[in-house]
Amino acid sequence: MTCKNCKTNPVITLTNNNVQLCKDCFIKYFEKKIAKTIEKYTLIEKNDKIALACSGGKDSFTLLYLLNKFANSKKTINLFVIAIDEGIHGYRELEILKDYCKENKLQLHIYSYKEEFGDSLDEILKKNPIRSCSICGVLRRFLLNSKARELGANKLATGHNLDDEAQSILMNTFKGNIKRSAILGPITGILKDERFVRRIKPLYFMLEKEVKTYAFLKNFPVKFSECPYSNDAYRGEIRDFLNDLENKHLGTKHAIINSFLDILPILREKYKNETINSCSICSEPCSGSICNVCKLLEKVNLKRKPIQSKIL
Amino acid sequence: MTCKNCKTNPVITLTNNNVQLCKDCFIKYFEKKIAKTIEKYTLIEKNDKIALACSGGKDSFTLLYLLNKFANSKKTINLFVIAIDEGIHGYRELEILKDYCKENKLQLHIYSYKEEFGDSLDEILKKNPIRSCSICGVLRRFLLNSKARELGANKLATGHNLDDEAQSILMNTFKGNIKRSAILGPITGILKDERFVRRIKPLYFMLEKEVKTYAFLKNFPVKFSECPYSNDAYRGEIRDFLNDLENKHLGTKHAIINSFLDILPILREKYKNETINSCSICSEPCSGSICNVCKLLEKVNLKRKPIQSKIL
Repeated sequence: MTCKNCKTNPVITLTNNNVQLCKDCFIKYFEKKIAKTIEKYTLIEKNDKIALACSGGKDSFTLLYLLNKFANSKKTINLFVIAIDEGIHGYRELEILKDYCKENKLQLHIYSYKEEFGDSLDEILKKNPIRSCSICGVLRRFLLNSKARELGANKLATGHNLDDEAQSILMNTFKGNIKRSAILGPITGILKDERFVRRIKPLYFMLEKEVKTYAFLKNFPVKFSECPYSNDAYRGEIRDFLNDLENKHLGTKHAIINSFLDILPILREKYKNETINSCSICSEPCSGSICNVCKLLEKVNLKRKPIQSKIL
Repeated sequence: MTCKNCKTNPVITLTNNNVQLCKDCFIKYFEKKIAKTIEKYTLIEKNDKIALACSGGKDSFTLLYLLNKFANSKKTINLFVIAIDEGIHGYRELEILKDYCKENKLQLHIYSYKEEFGDSLDEILKKNPIRSCSICGVLRRFLLNSKARELGANKLATGHNLDDEAQSILMNTFKGNIKRSAILGPITGILKDERFVRRIKPLYFMLEKEVKTYAFLKNFPVKFSECPYSNDAYRGEIRDFLNDLENKHLGTKHAIINSFLDILPILREKYKNETINSCSICSEPCSGSICNVCKLLEKVNLKRKPIQSKIL
């Protein structure tokens, strides 16, 4: 088998249509598909101020590289980077990201759990018998949204890929929580609440293996290792099941996304008038009377500290 | 552990709320839940003429027993039975069903592939290299609908249980065919086409293991064995995955159904104006220009024979 376009050695087989591509053709295909996603779903518009959430992993680094390229070609877009330093010794290192942002003249804002909440994730987990992924997800999502908002961003770009999204769709379905899926999709917008910065996911239609291949071929200085605390067993189960199913029935992951996008507009229509409460402690949006962040911080005996941000 | 209600020996643990029930309490629970389904979704109304599709297996026999009881208590309902004799030597035997219907003064209409199409399933599969479940499903569904219609039924009751439905929802999602899910649900009605008899599924909220237990406890004269031609590998994969997931995360199957029922009204709304074509050969409803029945019959060199029905 050779590359579909230029008959040289292929580096990847595309799952959804079973064609093979060489390095150069794959890179072109990958970038073109993301550009199409941005265009089709109007992810980026003139004068957007975009906060890009970057952990330095393959997905968000790929996103950073591509959106920076995009922002440089369209001079009317203001792009900056937010990184969350959870405080995971030997894992979360942001030096490479700092260098990259410096070289590319991108503003980088780093927020740490230690500074924001008083303890690093290492410390929180040492002191409390608590599931790492659940607390970390809640705190990170809160920081990303509130800091993006504070910094004046009207969009928050994240590196979620097609695998992440397909897993989330199934997990919500299997938990009987289809309402939660109304906030998924390539661009959010169901919640008419100015406290939520609109999320955009330019890698929405890229399989995880495609993002991995792209990051590898582009020689990005990223780690491919998983977080040492990673223990979201349920997501892991769903991921393994989906990978098995995709191996046996090519195109399943894309089909899940397509099925979902077929119903997303009507799902959003159904939930568009849902009222969003304000947390009685912090006034952040929440579904009950106290938000998950405040509940969790109380559980681990921490409080939010005054916000401090570093601009590098 | 003892029965939740009467403290005697339990026979089953209910998956969705993890309580145990003894034989008598389980039978009461089972029958009450089905009565509630019938009421909540208005599956049966005064003066309904209901064709009940019965294979003689645990699901449809349970349905037959319960709907007959229901029809006897509400004298305004006309219930009769349709059975399809595919022609599977040593497997499809309808003698017990015939006896049961005779004893209970229920009209039974048997239609065979041999009489309707010219060959039994045994013969079709002997002569053609074709996947048994795909051809059999298409022919059986066609006969059930067209014969129920011909016999003047305004509803067609089938023995689909919660497992069947959860599998179908996932299979449609994984094939990117969410539109097909719009015709699922406890009662159909999306297709405003009088050629389709409305389907009702009174066992909709009962797990397969609950139906099996009920049929066993009631000592129904049914076979629990699978069809010897059964080769729907994809449904088998999804079934195994769902069983695994349910074992690890109790309530997953119910959650899938609840997620689905949350969106079913809006899904039906979305597709309510879809036009249904007529097959250019037989005039039955179809999505393209030739229906699946005509396509399949052509493939196996058969033609529909004049309709013959036996009333026993």
